[in-house]
Order: sequence, then structure tokens, then C-alpha cells
Amino acid sequence: MENKKYTTIHYHGYLQLDKILDAQRMRSAELEEQAAHDEMLFIVVHQVYELWFKQIRHELDSVLDLFQTQSVDERNVGTAVHYLNRVIEIQKLLIQQIRIMETMTPLDFLDFRNYLFPASGFQSFQFRMLEGMLGLPETERLTYNNHHYASVFPEDQQKALAEIYTKGTLFDVIEAWLERTPFLQFGDFRFLAHYKKAVENMIKKEQEAIKSSDYLDEKEKAMRLKMLGSTDTYFLSILDPEVHRQMQEAGKLRLSYKATVAALLINLYRDEPILHEPFKLLMCLVDIDELMTTWRYRHAQMVLRMLGRKIGTGGSSGHDYLHATAVKHHIFSDLHNISTLLIPRSELPELPKALKQELGFYFSLKG
Amino acid sequence: MENKKYTTIHYHGYLQLDKILDAQRMRSAELEEQAAHDEMLFIVVHQVYELWFKQIRHELDSVLDLFQTQSVDERNVGTAVHYLNRVIEIQKLLIQQIRIMETMTPLDFLDFRNYLFPASGFQSFQFRMLEGMLGLPETERLTYNNHHYASVFPEDQQKALAEIYTKGTLFDVIEAWLERTPFLQFGDFRFLAHYKKAVENMIKKEQEAIKSSDYLDEKEKAMRLKMLGSTDTYFLSILDPEVHRQMQEAGKLRLSYKATVAALLINLYRDEPILHEPFKLLMCLVDIDELMTTWRYRHAQMVLRMLGRKIGTGGSSGHDYLHATAVKHHIFSDLHNISTLLIPRSELPELPKALKQELGFYFSLKG
Amino acid sequence: MENKKYTTIHYHGYLQLDKILDAQRMRSAELEEQAAHDEMLFIVVHQVYELWFKQIRHELDSVLDLFQTQSVDERNVGTAVHYLNRVIEIQKLLIQQIRIMETMTPLDFLDFRNYLFPASGFQSFQFRMLEGMLGLPETERLTYNNHHYASVFPEDQQKALAEIYTKGTLFDVIEAWLERTPFLQFGDFRFLAHYKKAVENMIKKEQEAIKSSDYLDEKEKAMRLKMLGSTDTYFLSILDPEVHRQMQEAGKLRLSYKATVAALLINLYRDEPILHEPFKLLMCLVDIDELMTTWRYRHAQMVLRMLGRKIGTGGSSGHDYLHATAVKHHIFSDLHNISTLLIPRSELPELPKALKQELGFYFSLKG
Amino acid sequence: MENKKYTTIHYHGYLQLDKILDAQRMRSAELEEQAAHDEMLFIVVHQVYELWFKQIRHELDSVLDLFQTQSVDERNVGTAVHYLNRVIEIQKLLIQQIRIMETMTPLDFLDFRNYLFPASGFQSFQFRMLEGMLGLPETERLTYNNHHYASVFPEDQQKALAEIYTKGTLFDVIEAWLERTPFLQFGDFRFLAHYKKAVENMIKKEQEAIKSSDYLDEKEKAMRLKMLGSTDTYFLSILDPEVHRQMQEAGKLRLSYKATVAALLINLYRDEPILHEPFKLLMCLVDIDELMTTWRYRHAQMVLRMLGRKIGTGGSSGHDYLHATAVKHHIFSDLHNISTLLIPRSELPELPKALKQELGFYFSLKG
Repeated sequence: MENKKYTTIHYHGYLQLDKILDAQRMRSAELEEQAAHDEMLFIVVHQVYELWFKQIRHELDSVLDLFQTQSVDERNVGTAVHYLNRVIEIQKLLIQQIRIMETMTPLDFLDFRNYLFPASGFQSFQFRMLEGMLGLPETERLTYNNHHYASVFPEDQQKALAEIYTKGTLFDVIEAWLERTPFLQFGDFRFLAHYKKAVENMIKKEQEAIKSSDYLDEKEKAMRLKMLGSTDTYFLSILDPEVHRQMQEAGKLRLSYKATVAALLINLYRDEPILHEPFKLLMCLVDIDELMTTWRYRHAQMVLRMLGRKIGTGGSSGHDYLHATAVKHHIFSDLHNISTLLIPRSELPELPKALKQELGFYFSLKG
Repeated sequence: MENKKYTTIHYHGYLQLDKILDAQRMRSAELEEQAAHDEMLFIVVHQVYELWFKQIRHELDSVLDLFQTQSVDERNVGTAVHYLNRVIEIQKLLIQQIRIMETMTPLDFLDFRNYLFPASGFQSFQFRMLEGMLGLPETERLTYNNHHYASVFPEDQQKALAEIYTKGTLFDVIEAWLERTPFLQFGDFRFLAHYKKAVENMIKKEQEAIKSSDYLDEKEKAMRLKMLGSTDTYFLSILDPEVHRQMQEAGKLRLSYKATVAALLINLYRDEPILHEPFKLLMCLVDIDELMTTWRYRHAQMVLRMLGRKIGTGGSSGHDYLHATAVKHHIFSDLHNISTLLIPRSELPELPKALKQELGFYFSLKG
Repeated sequence: MENKKYTTIHYHGYLQLDKILDAQRMRSAELEEQAAHDEMLFIVVHQVYELWFKQIRHELDSVLDLFQTQSVDERNVGTAVHYLNRVIEIQKLLIQQIRIMETMTPLDFLDFRNYLFPASGFQSFQFRMLEGMLGLPETERLTYNNHHYASVFPEDQQKALAEIYTKGTLFDVIEAWLERTPFLQFGDFRFLAHYKKAVENMIKKEQEAIKSSDYLDEKEKAMRLKMLGSTDTYFLSILDPEVHRQMQEAGKLRLSYKATVAALLINLYRDEPILHEPFKLLMCLVDIDELMTTWRYRHAQMVLRMLGRKIGTGGSSGHDYLHATAVKHHIFSDLHNISTLLIPRSELPELPKALKQELGFYFSLKG
Repeated sequence: MENKKYTTIHYHGYLQLDKILDAQRMRSAELEEQAAHDEMLFIVVHQVYELWFKQIRHELDSVLDLFQTQSVDERNVGTAVHYLNRVIEIQKLLIQQIRIMETMTPLDFLDFRNYLFPASGFQSFQFRMLEGMLGLPETERLTYNNHHYASVFPEDQQKALAEIYTKGTLFDVIEAWLERTPFLQFGDFRFLAHYKKAVENMIKKEQEAIKSSDYLDEKEKAMRLKMLGSTDTYFLSILDPEVHRQMQEAGKLRLSYKATVAALLINLYRDEPILHEPFKLLMCLVDIDELMTTWRYRHAQMVLRMLGRKIGTGGSSGHDYLHATAVKHHIFSDLHNISTLLIPRSELPELPKALKQELGFYFSLKG
């Protein structure tokens, strides 16, 4: 095999451009005397999307592989962050790309729209795979013309979609990994007890300060206390596992209690070297979720601009469907909500010195 | 005066950098031993926003001046398009800029958030001006802690906000300008009658073709007919002024009937030279509306990321408020909806030859 | 045929995803035990580039068709502007996309770089087509390992490249169209004579004002006069056709004298309705040129980052080659240089009233 | 002081909008009957630039503080990466922002350009500070109308510029920090000796494989050997300190030998946890350098578009000056060049097991 490395390869063949550049067959060219100029754009834009989807799948596959094990090496967390950052860069590009589609005017779209029936973006298998791999629960998926979302796909693709959930989505493996975090109880240090005390101290101190302030009038004091005091409620879900359980049952939370506590710890002590990469990993997931939502909104806007209130080639109102997914389909919103639980660094319990040292490296770079 | 032009000026003085660069006073630096590093970013980001808001106001002011007259010269339409395209470029930048704010983590924000009370983005006078100038109706504005949105501003600013509506917003002047369009009835040509006939022909022809198709099964035929046939309903609001009036009363439409017909004509015959710029003007408005909505969504996302479900310094849930404005505050959605009324070019009534010539230039560039 | 429109089509088949998604064969997967993770990115990025190149070719083809005639209808200028604006949006995306490639680190590239020999971006046929269609002269092309740039392509592609120049590039057809502009001499109005007088007046007036200014010291006066006075030289190439001819021969200018004068007129009187679209057309060309150059610089930077001073798989220093093309390969720089010839609007000769009217529309939109 | 925290603050006052929004005085409004519409844009764009420059200075100041010590805590490396990533995001925005300036046409600029004399971007004190803080050597600065670049500034600003170099630029502190890296010799492990052997092995092995390949013809073999074999020369500067010294003297390299070796080690073994953040730090510097260069190119392009070959208000050809700085003013190019020295991971010497362990954390996250 060694020697075969020295076979030669050319740009055209390596990229299989015979396939890539011969895959734009315009329906309007086949069915009309004159092709609709903008159908080429329509095809190319969607093909580019599918290529990027393939790339994102490639990255997510690798991340899932890294985490679908009982033991995630620290080196792997860094690698996962690297791959997810690439996904983020691709997502940004996908959003930019909508501007290009919007150079097609609604009237130009009408020149070939009739020939597309019943093709529809709903039929993108790869996009369904992506949603699944990230962790969109099957139960939350919207139906498609009153059929199961997967019903438009051939059997092997339906099977592939189902397997994602069996194998474990990104949400699943991250949750499991968070639950395994070893710091929640370390020697004498009980994170949750420390945190609870800090929250209580902070609220008490602030309440007193507000009440005795000479600078606030009564209305302002009330408003300020409301802003602070209602933190009681915010913190309940973390201070009381039972409240968390109830919220989970009611569908208000999804991430397990233990994983949530771990995520909180990582957020609060992210400056410790060993938590750098775990923190970045959580930030990546928040970014990916946010960019996915932005993409859905922008996509919905574009469809509205193109079709107004017309029914899409797929038989449903594209805008309404897409807007609904943008509002509903968040995967890592529990990580967004960690912000609710944060308290200022100055109120944070000091870490035991021994623990602090052990959160660092064996060896110090410090010269 | 002539001679004074040759006074000299330097970069620093011209840009008044003494003011600009001396306007970042960090509250945390005044109230704590150590300034919170990220408060500088927080201040600078908002100041940059306000500078761009001033620039957008400058452009909108000029556009309003151009249109707040009974007689809009064609040259002015081109100028307005130019200014609005600049607004669009600025909006794109404002959206990009949110990424910079997101480099601040929620924990870093907590280092100085407490000192900002009760300052809030709700208190941006310029943003309220912008919304008003574009045409957001006062009646649709959300209240602010149960007070009128303008109650946070000093009297002179409240007055300035009220004057926008007296003077006429962008929505108002565009509507009036559309209503004045002289083409709807030209010699023997009746646009609406022609359009109506074209719609009826198209629907009839398509229905027959679908029903007799050998390539569709019954279910597909039904779906396809639904997709087409329900166009009856789409078109009602334009074919029947009474339906339009009812929809307007029910708050489903805002643009006047006459202006809507004119906007439809411009969309359908935009290839005629005299309609080039009017069409671009309408597209600009659609873009501005869309970018404003995108900005609102992104802004809401950022607030969610920063605060979770916490109540904002302004005393309300920033995310919920911003998300509500994103969903609700569309200004030119009636122009988006023109797409619903479009029919393929091939179904368009041919323009009378005389009219076609008169939609061109006096002189032909055609060499 | 009519009836065939009602055949059905699905997303997967319409986009020919069987071809598109089956065209990523990783050399490292074939030649090593384990595939190099990032080779997928490398392939996908380049395939996406090639898809966009196809789209740009599609747009340029249509623009060339519109202009490859003796008589360009005004309607067509608007259409050309529309297509070129789409090219511009695509170019912006191509530049953004480089950030994605840069998520691959140099070390990751080394995991599969060895297997690519001698494939190289130099071998992109479509990119060579694009350069040619825009108007890059064959004589200015850099050689490739001391061979003609087209020598890496099979015969039919070499022929296609040659045909571009026979058929006429964008540069060629725009130049011809500018030369046909009918306004340079209209009735009694002689544009060039008017312009010349205006330049002379302006320079004289400014010189006097500077010399008699009380606000400038001697050094400032000298500097200011230099800034102004050297405009003599700037303007020579337009005021004296012989100077233009000499500069053309020396390779300093490329656009013909007559076309340059027309471009100047369009720039100066762009506010006249009939010149709106022609002006935008010229701006598009400047934008396309600028974005092409930016892309070349960014591409060169990326190669430098990836390979340092190593020799590329194509056998030459990628960075040096790309940087050289960025510096050298401008196509519409003569349009950039029109700025040198502009004078303030206030110094512009007033257009004869009759001419001014005839530069407008038959019919006035003015209500 | 505690209690003062509860003073209230409003948006308008906090952001000092009285200053910010009152700092746009248009020269054309003072010197002409009618203000030039686009002068507002010109002012606002530059003020926004200066605000961002202040923010970048704020970040760089903090990074310099973190590194201007003999002992950089690992926690600090992460913080520096965070701040530098923010600088990167701001730089991206600054580049985007050029599109907004380009909405001003050259003719519109001429409406007020005359009044700006002799103001010029060359006079931006903050930009000079930034260049200095990053590490642009004073000796490489271009002169300004044949005067020292700092001569346009008042004495206190000249002093501030000089102090940067006394205190130590980013280049200086990073170089010093790299030199202190403790891994180059660790127990029995000699990094450079290992690396040298690996390079030699790799070259020998590859040469043999190429020569004996059945898949390459003679010409291809020669080309391939050139591509590989010339690596001898690439590697000389790192394998032989004397060669490095000579290149440094000749101005071809700037980074010290010891720092270069450390940077190479960090690049090659970046997957070890302790080297994650140091590697990212180096990548940030490469990004900042690259973005600075892109900004210079884009800025040069914009000036060319606006002025053509005219001399700028500052008395020199803006485009030529800016283009020269883009070509010449790289600060961290030695880090770009590390890529030249990289070898594939598969050829890398295995790290001693003890060392590998010590490059990790005390405690393992591995659950």
C-alpha cells in the first residue's frame, strides 16, 4: 500500500467534478421552451446546503464517537470543541447564504415553481439526521401534512433516523458525561452546599442594602427587590431536586438534575485550567443551538418573502411550519438557562486550596 | 465665507475625539476597588449602536423629506433607494455586532450588572425614534412596566416622538406615494380588470391540466388543487375592495387598497424602465423590515444567553419583551404579502404597445 | 408537453443528491488504515467552490448574451445589474468561506496532503473560465510551472477557454457598449468641451483662493496647491486623446478613449434617470473586481498559514503565485480610476434644459 | 461605598450620550449653504472606528498586564486567549464596516472633501498605539510626508507612543514567555534532537519511496523530490541556530531562536492538555495579524475607489501608503512560518510516557 501513495491524482478527478457539475438539471429547461434563468440558482443553493450538511454530519459523528464511551479523555474534550467550532463556522455561513437566495425575486421563482411539485425542503434526509444527532426528541417533531415526519423517506433512511436515538444523541452523551464529572463532591468539599450558602448570603446582603439605601425611592426599592428577591424562585430548581423533577415532568426542563449541577459548577469555576475546555464545550452547544434557531427564523422569513401566504410545494405553509420549528425546537435551552443560576464571582465560595491545586496541571508552565 | 474653507482641521478635532473617547465611565471602577474588565465592552458596544442609530435617523430624515411632498421627482426615488440601501448595510452590521457582545460571558456580566439599575435598552430614545420614523404605530407599541412606552423620556423627547406621527412616517409617505401612481388607469388600459382576467384564466387552465394529468394519483391531484385552488382566497383581498376593507378593519392588513394595487402593479411590471427604481424601493422596505426583525430575534437570544430567565435591569424580562416585539412589530408586512398575489410572467396580460413605450425613456440608450 | 409539467419530482431526485453526496472519496481513507478527519472538509469546501463557480458562470453567460449584440435595450441593463449583484453576493460568501477552511490547522492538513500530488487549485477549469469571461487578458496570465496556464487542461477545455476571447469578454462588451453611448454629443451640447472648461475654471479658482487664504501658512499653501495643482496631470489623459493613447500603449490604461469618456459622463450625470442603471452597472464591475482581489489576497493568506514557505502540491509556491495574481490581475481598474477625473457637482456644467428633459422618462411618475 | 452602589443610573447618562451624539459637526454645514448629506456618514464611520480602537486597546492593555511579569499563571493564558478572541471578533466587524463606507460614491465624497484639509487617517493616535502595542517596530514604520510618523501628534501622545516600546509590546512579551517554556528539555527528553531525527527519517523514507514508485514518471518524480527535498532548506533555520541568527540579522526572521523552537513544540504537541491554551494563543496572534493585513488591503481598496490616483487630504497618495503597509507590516509572520517546519503527526517522535502524563492534569476528568 505504501507505494500506492505515489499514484497521482488531479483536481478534477479528486473532487469528482464530473458528478458535481453534472447534477444541475433544470426542470424548466425540460418542460418549457426556455429555461427559467433562476432555477439554476435554486438548485445550486440547495446542493451547497446538502454538502455542508454532510460536513456537519461528519463532525457530529466524530464528536459522538468521542463521547460514546464511558471514559472521555481530556484530550478528547479539546478535540470535540475544535470540531464543534467548525460546525459553528459552517452554520454562520449557512445563514449568510440565505442572502443569496433572496436575490431571487418572488416573480422569478414563479417561473419554475410549478414544476417542483411536490418536492420540498421537508424532504431533506440529511437535515432530519442533523436535528436528530443534535438531540431533537422524536416526540417533539412536528408532523408533516399530518404524517410522521419520517414518512417521506425510504425505509433505509427511516431506519437510519431511528438508529440515531438508539445510539445516543449529542444531548444524551453530553448529559451522561456531565453526570460523570467527578468534582461535585471532592474530599470535604460539597459544591452544592457551598453554592446554596452563597446564594442565601448574597440575597440577604443585597436585600438589606437595598432597604437601607438613601439613593432609592420606595418604588425603586420595590422594583429592585423584585428583581433580586424573585431570585428565590429562580434558584429553587437547583436547590431542591424535587422542584427540578417536577419541572422536568412538566416539560419545562430536560437536562437531568445531576448534569445541571455539573454544568453550573463548570460555569462558575471555568477559570480553573481543568474546566477551560469543558466550559468551552458548553458554550459551543449554546452557540450551535442559537445559530440553528437563527437559521430557522431567517429561513422562515425567506419563505414568507418568496411565497407570501401561498401554500408551499410540499403542501403546507412553509413559513408557518418553519416559524413553529424556530420557536419550539431548542435542544440545549437548559444550558442557556444556567445563566439564571449564576451569582457574581465575588459571592462565590473560595475553593479549598488543595482542590484548587488539583484542578491545575501536574506541571506548571509558570516560568 | 468662501475663504474660510481654507481653514485647517485635524483628525482629532474634526471627529471631536475629546468627547467621543472620554465618554466611557465605568460604574464598576467608581464603585469597586477594581473595575470589571468587560464593562468597557458593554459601554462601547452601546455607544456604537447609538452612533449608527444617529446615522440611520439621518438617512430616514432625508428620505422622509424627499417624499413629504405632493410631487416626488423620479430622480428622488433613486436617491431614496440609495439612502435606504445604506440603512440596510448598517442593519447588517448591527446584527453582526451582536457576536461581539456575546464574547462577554454571563458571569462576566454579573461583575457589574448590579450597578446599572435601572438603566435599560428600553430607554434608548433614538431607537424609539427609528421605530416611529419607519412607521410602527403608536397603538401597537408594548407598554413598559405598564406605563406608556414614552414615559421614560423627558418632555422634549416625548414631544419629538409624537411629532413623528404628525409629520408622517415612512409607511405613511410611501402609502401616499403609491396611491398617486398614475398607471392604474392609462388610456384604455385598466390594470385591475386585466389582472383579474389573467388570474381567472390561470386558475381555470391549471385546474383542467391537473385533473386530466396522467402523472398524478388522486391524492396528489387533490393536494395540487388545494395548493392552486385556494388561490381563490388569496386573491379575494385584491379583487374585491370590500374584502380588503374588512381585513383592514380586522387589523389583518394595513396598507390602503389603492396603494396595494399600485404595489402589485410595480411588482408585476418591474421590468419596465420607469418601474425599476419604484420596485427597488419596495424591495428596500421589505429588506429593512426583515433585518429589523432579525435584529430583534438576535437581540432576544443574546439577552436570554446573558440573563436566562432573570429580570432585566429595566425591571422586566428582557427576553420576553424583545421576543414579543420580534413577533409583532412588522411594519411593511403588506409588501411581503404582495408575493401572495403574484402570478407567473407567462400569465401576465401583455401591456398595450403605446403604454409599453411610454414606460420607457424619451431617448433610447439602445445603440 | 404541457401535461408533462404535472409529473412529480422529489427533493432527493431533483437535486440529484445521489451524485452530489456520493462524490467525497477521501484519499487518506483509501491509502491509510485510518482516514484523515479533515480531508472531508478539504473536499467539501472545494466542491462548494466549484458549485458557486458554476453559478457565477451561469450569470456571466447571461450578461454576455445580453450585451453581445449591437443594440442593448435599456431593460437589459437593469437585468444585467440584477445578475451581477447576485455574483457580488456570491463573491462575498466565497470570501467568508475561507474562514471555514482556516478551521483546519496546518498539522491536520499534513495528515493527507501527501496524497494529493499533483492536484492543485491551479487546475480548476471553471476558475480559469471565470477569469476569462470577466476579461483577464490571456497575455497577462501567469505561467504555471513555466507552461501555458491552459496546458493542464484537456483539449476540449483548452478550446473552451480560447473561445471566450473570440466571443468577447465582459470587458470587451462593456467597452463596446460604452462606446455606443449616444450622449457625448447631443445637439449643441459637447460633453468634453464643457467638462474641460469646468476643470480649468475649478483649478484656477481654487488656486487663487488658496494663495490668498489668511488661514494657511506657506507650507500648507504649498501642500494644498500640490494636492490641487497636480490635478493637471490627472486630467491630461482625458483632455488629450494622444496622452490616453500613449498610456494605453505603455500598458497603463486598457479601456478605449471613447469608452472612458462615456464612463466619466455616466459617473458625473448619474442622477439623470436614464443613467441610473448604467451607473449601477459600472459600480457592479468595480465591486466584482474589488471582491475578486480580496478573495485572491485572502486565499494567499490562507495558503501561507497552511504551508508557510513550503512548495504546494502543484509544484509551485502557492502563496507567491496567489499574491502575484492579487496584485496584478485587475480587470476594471480603469473604472476605479474614473474617480481621479471627477470634479465636485457644484463645478459641473449645467446640462441644457432640453437634454435634461430627454434624459428622463416619457411619462412622469411625479404625481 | 457599598451603599453608593444603589444610586440609580439611566441609559442616557450612563452612556454619556450627550457627548456621543453631540460630536458630529459637519464642516460642509458650516461652510456651505447646504450640508453635504454624506459627511455625516464619514464622521460617524470614523467615530465608530475610534470607539472600537479604544476597546481593542483595553483588551491589549489587559493582555500585556498578564504577560508583563516573570511568571505567567496558566489561568492567565486562557484569559489572554479570551481577550484576544474578542479582538478578533472586533477586527472582523471593522472589515465588514468598510462596506458601509463604500456606499458613499466618489462624487458624494467630493461634496465635502475640500473642507477636510489636512485632516487624515494618518493622524489617528489610537491606531498608532494599536500598531505599537501589537509590536510593529518603530524602525519599520513608514514616514509621513518625510517626517517621523509620530510628528503629527502632540508631545504627550508622542511620549505615550514611545512608552509602548519601553514597556514591552505584545511581540516582546510573547517572545519572552515562549523562551521561558520549560518543556524543551525535560529529564532525558531533548525535543530538538528528537525532532531533527524525525525530519531526517521522514525525508529519507520519502525520497526512497518516490524514487522506487511505479506510478510516477521521471518528470513527476523530479517535481515530487523538489517538493520534498527542498525541505532541507526549510528546516535549516531551526536545525542550525547559526542559520537562524543570520536570517535574523538579514531581517528575514524576527523571533528569537529559543522562542521559535518553543512555538514549534507547541504546534506539534498541541493535543497535550497543558498545551491547548498556548496553542490557541499562538493561533490568535496569527489571526490578528491576518485580519490586520486584510483590513489594510480593504482600506487601500476603498481609498482607491474613492480617490483614484488623487492625492489624499493628508498630502500623500492614500492608496499607495496603505497598500505598502499591508505588504510590509506583518508582526507575527514568524508564527505563520512555523507551518514550514511542521511534519506529519505520524512522523512525530513519541513523547516519553512520563512526560506525557505530566503534560496532563493532576486529576483526571476521565470518568
